[in-house]
Amino acid sequence: MILGKVVGTIVATRKDERLVGSTLLLVQPVLPDGEARGGPIVAVDTVDAGAAETVLVVSGSSARMAAGQADRPIDAAIIGIVDVVSTNEAP
Amino acid sequence: MILGKVVGTIVATRKDERLVGSTLLLVQPVLPDGEARGGPIVAVDTVDAGAAETVLVVSGSSARMAAGQADRPIDAAIIGIVDVVSTNEAP
Amino acid sequence: MILGKVVGTIVATRKDERLVGSTLLLVQPVLPDGEARGGPIVAVDTVDAGAAETVLVVSGSSARMAAGQADRPIDAAIIGIVDVVSTNEAP
Amino acid sequence: MILGKVVGTIVATRKDERLVGSTLLLVQPVLPDGEARGGPIVAVDTVDAGAAETVLVVSGSSARMAAGQADRPIDAAIIGIVDVVSTNEAP
Amino acid sequence: MILGKVVGTIVATRKDERLVGSTLLLVQPVLPDGEARGGPIVAVDTVDAGAAETVLVVSGSSARMAAGQADRPIDAAIIGIVDVVSTNEAP
Repeated sequence: MILGKVVGTIVATRKDERLVGSTLLLVQPVLPDGEARGGPIVAVDTVDAGAAETVLVVSGSSARMAAGQADRPIDAAIIGIVDVVSTNEAP
Repeated sequence: MILGKVVGTIVATRKDERLVGSTLLLVQPVLPDGEARGGPIVAVDTVDAGAAETVLVVSGSSARMAAGQADRPIDAAIIGIVDVVSTNEAP
Repeated sequence: MILGKVVGTIVATRKDERLVGSTLLLVQPVLPDGEARGGPIVAVDTVDAGAAETVLVVSGSSARMAAGQADRPIDAAIIGIVDVVSTNEAP
Repeated sequence: MILGKVVGTIVATRKDERLVGSTLLLVQPVLPDGEARGGPIVAVDTVDAGAAETVLVVSGSSARMAAGQADRPIDAAIIGIVDVVSTNEAP
Repeated sequence: MILGKVVGTIVATRKDERLVGSTLLLVQPVLPDGEARGGPIVAVDTVDAGAAETVLVVSGSSARMAAGQADRPIDAAIIGIVDVVSTNEAP
């Protein structure tokens, strides 16, 4: 999984019928310190994430294992809201 | 999923028989502002996308979950036409 | 899927038994104008592709959906010979 | 699989119900000599890995094959603690 | 699939029980001329590959299709020993 930040919303009226009712969010992958890394992706929200929140994103076929996503044509899903990223203290 | 822009069409007379009748489009991955990002990919169109439209593309095994694509040898499918990408306002 | 150009052949006498009889081609991913992009990959040929031809390559688990490839240990297959890549005219 | 080093922990109170009870670790991919390579990922721990240990990480759908992870929405799992990486001697 | 060169061995005493007995090799992806490309990966050996040999590596879920690997938590397997890479002659 990767860390990401919710940076926007996608509106798509014409789409695969199994995506109707899904919330499609634009997610910017980030490093633990919040710095952007690579380009944004579009993920289905399954945990009611809000704007600017740090989230956990699962990619690939495993996105279809997220709650309510079985057999949907999705390759990325938001599966958690990140409260804390605690990094090991330097020795 | 990623955002892309339809930039062309692929004609392939000799191909896997399960691709016969499929529309193969050349899609340029783009950033939310429309700027190109990386090289183009070939995706099966499942939503009747037109030239220059901004589309939503699903990759990997999940492309086979798009309408009518079960068991086809495809790893990318256009599953939506993007109307709006609304990014969070800067605070 | 991606566009590629057949640039060579792989000979492997000792291999997984389910690969016996398969033709393994070296494919250079290319841009629509034929320019090389990234490093070459090895793909199973399912459409009798010839040297220097531009081909359509499917990757990942979907390669196993290509004709005759079910349950084989492959992650890339050539599934079409590209006749034409027509890009949108600039407006 | 890739080599990684455990560099932190993720706390996510609101998450997919099938992730409840899982330990989510922040893993930095590393080269055999321990040098960092690319950005960190989040992986489910299945072998009780400790901070700063070098671990073996499996990605994609195969992460769901790790002990106790069937059908969970995960795309990365720690499946081994690396004791030694022995590289071939230069001739 | 990709070409790689066997450059080392991984010893992991504590690991997923389905990996017990597997040989985990460190493989450096290479170009057809043997030049290194990108960082090394860890792959399960299924063809008794030796040090410094050039091998064929399958990645992703297809690695589980290699002989004896069904349902194991692996995302890369060595499935062939490469004897020759013959590239097309320049015209």
